[in-house]
Amino acid sequence: MIAQTWLLLRKFVYDYLHDENNQSKLSLAINMALIVLILANVFAVILETVNSIYFEHKRLFDWFENISITIFTAEYLLRMWSVVEEKPEQSAWKTRWQWVTSGGAIIDLLAILPAYINFFVHLDLRILRTLRLLRLLKLTRYFTSLQILLRVLEREKGSFQAVLFILSILIVMAAAGVYIVENQAQPHVYSSIPASMWWAVVTLTTVGYGDVTPITPLGKFLGALITILGLGLAALPAGILATGIANELEARKHELELKFQTLLHHQDIDLVKDHKKIEEIRRQVGLTVEQTEDIIRKLIREQKEQALQAQRQHYCYCPNCGHQLPKESTHQGDY
Amino acid sequence: MIAQTWLLLRKFVYDYLHDENNQSKLSLAINMALIVLILANVFAVILETVNSIYFEHKRLFDWFENISITIFTAEYLLRMWSVVEEKPEQSAWKTRWQWVTSGGAIIDLLAILPAYINFFVHLDLRILRTLRLLRLLKLTRYFTSLQILLRVLEREKGSFQAVLFILSILIVMAAAGVYIVENQAQPHVYSSIPASMWWAVVTLTTVGYGDVTPITPLGKFLGALITILGLGLAALPAGILATGIANELEARKHELELKFQTLLHHQDIDLVKDHKKIEEIRRQVGLTVEQTEDIIRKLIREQKEQALQAQRQHYCYCPNCGHQLPKESTHQGDY
Amino acid sequence: MIAQTWLLLRKFVYDYLHDENNQSKLSLAINMALIVLILANVFAVILETVNSIYFEHKRLFDWFENISITIFTAEYLLRMWSVVEEKPEQSAWKTRWQWVTSGGAIIDLLAILPAYINFFVHLDLRILRTLRLLRLLKLTRYFTSLQILLRVLEREKGSFQAVLFILSILIVMAAAGVYIVENQAQPHVYSSIPASMWWAVVTLTTVGYGDVTPITPLGKFLGALITILGLGLAALPAGILATGIANELEARKHELELKFQTLLHHQDIDLVKDHKKIEEIRRQVGLTVEQTEDIIRKLIREQKEQALQAQRQHYCYCPNCGHQLPKESTHQGDY
Amino acid sequence: MIAQTWLLLRKFVYDYLHDENNQSKLSLAINMALIVLILANVFAVILETVNSIYFEHKRLFDWFENISITIFTAEYLLRMWSVVEEKPEQSAWKTRWQWVTSGGAIIDLLAILPAYINFFVHLDLRILRTLRLLRLLKLTRYFTSLQILLRVLEREKGSFQAVLFILSILIVMAAAGVYIVENQAQPHVYSSIPASMWWAVVTLTTVGYGDVTPITPLGKFLGALITILGLGLAALPAGILATGIANELEARKHELELKFQTLLHHQDIDLVKDHKKIEEIRRQVGLTVEQTEDIIRKLIREQKEQALQAQRQHYCYCPNCGHQLPKESTHQGDY
Repeated sequence: MIAQTWLLLRKFVYDYLHDENNQSKLSLAINMALIVLILANVFAVILETVNSIYFEHKRLFDWFENISITIFTAEYLLRMWSVVEEKPEQSAWKTRWQWVTSGGAIIDLLAILPAYINFFVHLDLRILRTLRLLRLLKLTRYFTSLQILLRVLEREKGSFQAVLFILSILIVMAAAGVYIVENQAQPHVYSSIPASMWWAVVTLTTVGYGDVTPITPLGKFLGALITILGLGLAALPAGILATGIANELEARKHELELKFQTLLHHQDIDLVKDHKKIEEIRRQVGLTVEQTEDIIRKLIREQKEQALQAQRQHYCYCPNCGHQLPKESTHQGDY
Repeated sequence: MIAQTWLLLRKFVYDYLHDENNQSKLSLAINMALIVLILANVFAVILETVNSIYFEHKRLFDWFENISITIFTAEYLLRMWSVVEEKPEQSAWKTRWQWVTSGGAIIDLLAILPAYINFFVHLDLRILRTLRLLRLLKLTRYFTSLQILLRVLEREKGSFQAVLFILSILIVMAAAGVYIVENQAQPHVYSSIPASMWWAVVTLTTVGYGDVTPITPLGKFLGALITILGLGLAALPAGILATGIANELEARKHELELKFQTLLHHQDIDLVKDHKKIEEIRRQVGLTVEQTEDIIRKLIREQKEQALQAQRQHYCYCPNCGHQLPKESTHQGDY
Repeated sequence: MIAQTWLLLRKFVYDYLHDENNQSKLSLAINMALIVLILANVFAVILETVNSIYFEHKRLFDWFENISITIFTAEYLLRMWSVVEEKPEQSAWKTRWQWVTSGGAIIDLLAILPAYINFFVHLDLRILRTLRLLRLLKLTRYFTSLQILLRVLEREKGSFQAVLFILSILIVMAAAGVYIVENQAQPHVYSSIPASMWWAVVTLTTVGYGDVTPITPLGKFLGALITILGLGLAALPAGILATGIANELEARKHELELKFQTLLHHQDIDLVKDHKKIEEIRRQVGLTVEQTEDIIRKLIREQKEQALQAQRQHYCYCPNCGHQLPKESTHQGDY
Repeated sequence: MIAQTWLLLRKFVYDYLHDENNQSKLSLAINMALIVLILANVFAVILETVNSIYFEHKRLFDWFENISITIFTAEYLLRMWSVVEEKPEQSAWKTRWQWVTSGGAIIDLLAILPAYINFFVHLDLRILRTLRLLRLLKLTRYFTSLQILLRVLEREKGSFQAVLFILSILIVMAAAGVYIVENQAQPHVYSSIPASMWWAVVTLTTVGYGDVTPITPLGKFLGALITILGLGLAALPAGILATGIANELEARKHELELKFQTLLHHQDIDLVKDHKKIEEIRRQVGLTVEQTEDIIRKLIREQKEQALQAQRQHYCYCPNCGHQLPKESTHQGDY
């Protein structure tokens, strides 16, 4: 009897905490509450570093941190416990282990671990605070558009490596060049190649703080040359990413369209009514609701046009010279 | 009799102030005068903040503001009154309410409201001036190319959210990192994470004022790393926008071409003479005159080519092996 | 007799100075000499502003300027005189007037005019020098790739106007915002909106000199917000241009391919031997030699493949079910 | 007998040092060791310029340099000696000469030459160090993604020239303009056009150090104008590169697909098993392993779909009106 209740409870926890496809009000409310808590945590960490605020509300901050760590720990444990429902055919601990070693669970663990480590090892307060900022990464779970960006980053890995390689060469060469030219005029600023690399990075990325600038005519000439050479590099990763994102979106839209067309061909879907099925396919492919609606609208339009054209083609036309064939006449009968 | 004149007047006001499709000289003159007045207002607001100019011409500025507010109020009221003509089948006040709650009308209201509020609540002069700059937004009405940009912004919402999310994480993490590393060397500059976030934003966007820079070797190393990581982000929104604009334009040109082709198929349009119909379709799709002319030129060329090809294909060719079929022979006759 | 020599001379001047299609050695040498002279002029103007160099070589500079102005004047007059040969069917002065009012001729005139104006009106030496830099524009004639850029600029005019409009609104709003917020903390820096606009431009374009920066927390927050909003704008014109250039090149390559295919269809060209015809078409379309060679290589490959496929298709295949038809059987015979 | 051993040894050296297609463990280990040595060399050169580190470990640095130069010299000589195996049909010295004059070999020579030149001519220590940084270029050999970038740079040469030309004109004009406007207010900063060009480059590339800024209202206005004009230029090379890379990748993927399809058509390849053949073609075309796998997955999917469709098309359909033809009926029989 108790075991039964236990299982029902586990199913309940899984449905409302873990299942991403669940769009019931309770599930959305739980997720919203967690998002608000994460954001509140990040703001708290940021505000704590302002001494005047921290010392005045020290007890409030401590109390909030204790509450937060309790909730996040409970969330972690409940997720680990209930994840079993995901694959009922597997042994419970195997499913749990798979979850614990997944990306999302590791981020969840990183969000609570520093607080517990602090009991054993005494960490510097400032470092501890920063580690608590890792809770920000918990938001990744709720951010689907991020996946496309990560996918593009992975696909265009080769191009990024090439850009980083050229950038490294340019930075080292620029630093060495300016070191030779400016070292005697500004021995304390361009004291060595590593020191000059700060200037090279700041210049090639077009940040240009101005704390370190060449002052000799030759140094300025070299600096101008390096800056112009670097022009093509600074925005290159962004350009590659933007083109990559556009292509990835195009490919996903095409995939979604194909899936819908196959289902339509077998009359397995009704694009106007089957909201649940559409939502499921949309999640699989990883597109937003708007993009999916665009595609559905296009498919419905095409269906109508085809129906119209089929009607129009009641008459057959000779494929050789385009003349209209007599109605009801088919080739089979002619032979 | 008076009611009749009243209705005629309302129709006149609607035609020459409100109707965007009206391209008569009077209508263009009214619009041009309004544009000049808006620009003059903005320049006046900007110049008023220069004390030496303001105190010398105080009366002129006040007089100009009074004139402007009168004209803009009259414009708002006339538009509200005459908009009824747009949908004669609807009740007058319903049409008016729809207009009042539309984007353009809200901007128009924002342009005059601050001046009237000032009668009741006494606003700070500098804030009042800035609010008057909202009149600049009235220009949106006359700027059709802006619509494509706004449409792309809406379509690529998902990508922008992802970029902003990553940027936020990067800013918070960079600020926390530099706070830990530089706090002891520059306690007044990197006093807290919020203070360090100023540096993070200025660096990641490659603005690089140089008012706050890392000075320790570790801080410089961290700064260089963050800057290089940020390289791909700074120009990413621009890249996404540029690709999106190109795609949106492509899609609109395609839509326009399809519309023309459908009309040509039913012989409902003459691309050389039907300027009015072409103009109407162009406005619907939202393309510039030049882009439309490009497409029309292309379609006319294609028509000519098809006519030529039809002539050439007077002889039929067997679709199986490509041999020429005897002239005048059609399949119908053969069966 | 003299008239005859005169005409021959004019033809000679036209051929070797004016005709862009002339690729003889003498023509190339004349063009190269003019390019070198233009570059030398620009360098001379730049060096003259360095006082130490100017006062030491004053006579050399003056002598060089006199020589240059003589040559450029001669070039202008010879071009005007000989341009008649371009359209022999037209009256000489009409052709000349058309040339004088063309873009290239106006640039040529601007390059020599300031030197002559100086005889009548006494210009400031520094302004006169800068005007002589206009000679740099004479190089436009020799730079064909520039045309694509200008064409794209013209086509994407609408997008650029929209970007400039948004940028103007952002600059004015940002300047007004920072003026309200920072005016009391830094009354001499953000003294008025026009003064604050300098900060707004420097920030939104990510130049970030650092001579003017917000110092109040609210000002920094506003500054950060504006910078992040501006992120998408700064690189947008570049993105639009880059996409536009890619599309324009694509369109031109397609046009060139079509022209070649039409000529091949009528057997009017031999892609391996007709270098002159290819060169002429290449110039018309406005592509580089390399791009044209790419397309020719592609077309030759396609021709070979078609020949191969034609051979393979000696046997006919039924278009209905794909079975091979008996050799030599044609539909004509069957009916 | 000795000659035989010699030849075997040469073959061995070629296989494990030179052959890029060799993916045996020994070959990979040798390449990895060389990469580590190159990186260690670059780090050593960078660290040597830090005086405190250099004087403490002077002997270590000298010893490491001697070891490195020995290994790199040995590598160069072994490569030159064994390269003969590449084209056995050619005379040995001809192959060697071809290799010595190839890009990779020149980089290898540049990496060791400065050390030997130092025996004869006494170079400045700082210049000698920088020349040793050229060893970084030896890494180019191991970086295949770089080739695409270089290919795109070559293809888009025309666009880059146009951008550089416009940039040059803008820099010269901007420098001249600011020189005229600001020269009297800041005679030591904007002392001449060359001096002002430093400001122009720093501004147009949006680096914006802030060491030189306009201070007069007119100068600031001019500066703002130039900066906004420069907006479209700064990121243009990056945009052209990014679009070019995307197109080049697209073209290569298409080429790879075509090659695979041709091989599949002649049943010369098995996409699941022929890893060696696939690897060879992948290297020829110059794509990464992941990109190739994507294409192979797509081709296998297409093959399956075609097989399915062929099955479905067991029944023939009339191409005229779409009616199903009676089974087993073929046109041949009908004639």
